[in-house]
Order: sequence, then structure tokens, then C-alpha cells
Amino acid sequence: MDKKIIAEIRELREKSNVAFVGSVNENSFPQIKGMLVVEDEDKREMKTHYFSTNYSSKRVKQFLANPKACVYYCDETKDKYKGALFTGTIEVCTDHDTKAMLWHDGDEIYYPKGIDDDDYCVYKFTAETVNYYHGLSNKTFSIDEI
Amino acid sequence: MDKKIIAEIRELREKSNVAFVGSVNENSFPQIKGMLVVEDEDKREMKTHYFSTNYSSKRVKQFLANPKACVYYCDETKDKYKGALFTGTIEVCTDHDTKAMLWHDGDEIYYPKGIDDDDYCVYKFTAETVNYYHGLSNKTFSIDEI
Repeated sequence: MDKKIIAEIRELREKSNVAFVGSVNENSFPQIKGMLVVEDEDKREMKTHYFSTNYSSKRVKQFLANPKACVYYCDETKDKYKGALFTGTIEVCTDHDTKAMLWHDGDEIYYPKGIDDDDYCVYKFTAETVNYYHGLSNKTFSIDEI
Repeated sequence: MDKKIIAEIRELREKSNVAFVGSVNENSFPQIKGMLVVEDEDKREMKTHYFSTNYSSKRVKQFLANPKACVYYCDETKDKYKGALFTGTIEVCTDHDTKAMLWHDGDEIYYPKGIDDDDYCVYKFTAETVNYYHGLSNKTFSIDEI
């Protein structure tokens, strides 16, 4: 049974084009933002999830102050309703190598100075647990189990 | 300009079939769950958002311990990428009238005892602010402004 659930979690993570990233703001309220998954499909790991974003954004300030985070992938197609909620921490990376790893041709539209544009940075999310639900089944795993 | 943005926020709230509900768990980590919007379309207000759920769920315990919440509606269709993030608090309602208001024929599948089933309850989310982004525009309103 767990084997099937784990396969479904992996599939959601590997096939989703959008992830929902949760943070906690300066007043301790939860916040959510939808973000594109820009990692190449064959590089999508379960423990580490990367996202590119603007260093000047409000959310970067939130993660610098409080790294607690979650990343949620789901399929809300009618009669499916399944979701994988990864919980962990986000590190805001500004080093060249991490930024280069996530860079794609065309990103100059957003970051005119290229990989080393000061406004370009990368969230490195490290998961500790993942909760998966599908219909009435609901189960939490340590990230090393999946 | 604000008038157009406000119209877009209202449209997202009124037309979305799915909302993403954020909470803070007992270890102060943000958590996200996708939930169906079951309010009738003509009853979807900006300040108050209702969701039906199982009283026995983990998230009910989170909101009873910490009412801080957010509700996020978005359109992640390619080249759209717009989202409205409402921030506020959630009250867990177990009274007959609130539960009756959100009840739909067929809900007996989930709650066999009907409206007064002890496992059926309603989140009453009250928004204080809403942040809206679309492309590069990003603006926060007090809920009474929209």
C-alpha cells in the first residue's frame, strides 16, 4: 500500500508545473504563493526543491526572517483531489552555482543582467516530511522514507 | 487602475472552484490544503469565505489552537499567473445554522447523519487584507476597500 502511495507522491512532484509555496509573515500569518516549477523534470528530487524568484520580493524577506516553509503539489481535477504537502525550510541562495543550475534561456526577460543579476535568487527548499491525501486516505512520511 | 484590479480580485474569488487554505501548525510551520469552494456563486463575499470540512481533521485542531489563516485563489493558466491572497482568521463553526447554510444535497455521502453530523463543521474565514498580483503589478488592499 505504501509503495503505491509513494509512487503517487513522486508522480505529483515530478509532473506538476505549479507548486504552492507557504511561508509565515512578520505577524505570524501563513501566506501562499503559486510558483512555476522550473527544474528540469529529471532533476526533481523529493528532499530538495528549487524555485527561482526576485530577491526584492516580500517573500524573500519573510524567508530570511523565518525559514519555516511548505511546498504543496496537487491535482484538483474533479474526482481526483489528491495533494502532497512537503514541510521543511527554505534557504535563499544568491551564489552563482545555484543560480546557474536553475537558469534557463530566456530568463533575461526577467533578469536583464543574467545569472548574476542581483535581483535573481533561488529558494532551496529542504523537506523533512510529506503528507499525502487521496480521497479518504491520508498519510505522513519522513522524507527519507520516500 | 485600482477599479480594474478590484474587479479582477472579485472575479477570481467568485469564479474559482478551488481555494488554497493556509494554516500554521503546532510547530509554527505553514501548511496548505486545496479545498473546494462550495458556496453558491451569488453568495461569495470578499470579507467572509466559508468552507465545509471534517471536524476530526488535523487542520481543525490547528485552527482551534491558532486562528491565523490565509485563503488564496489563483489562475495559473500559462501567460496569466494572477493570484489573490486573502489574509485573516478562521473560526471553526459547529452551530446548526452555519452548517445548514453550506449544506448541499448529496453531502450525506460524507456526513451520513446530515447537517447535524458531529463530524461536519464549517470554517468561517474573515479576511483583513487582500494582496493581488498579475504580471509585475502587486498591490495590497484593506478588505473594506474592495
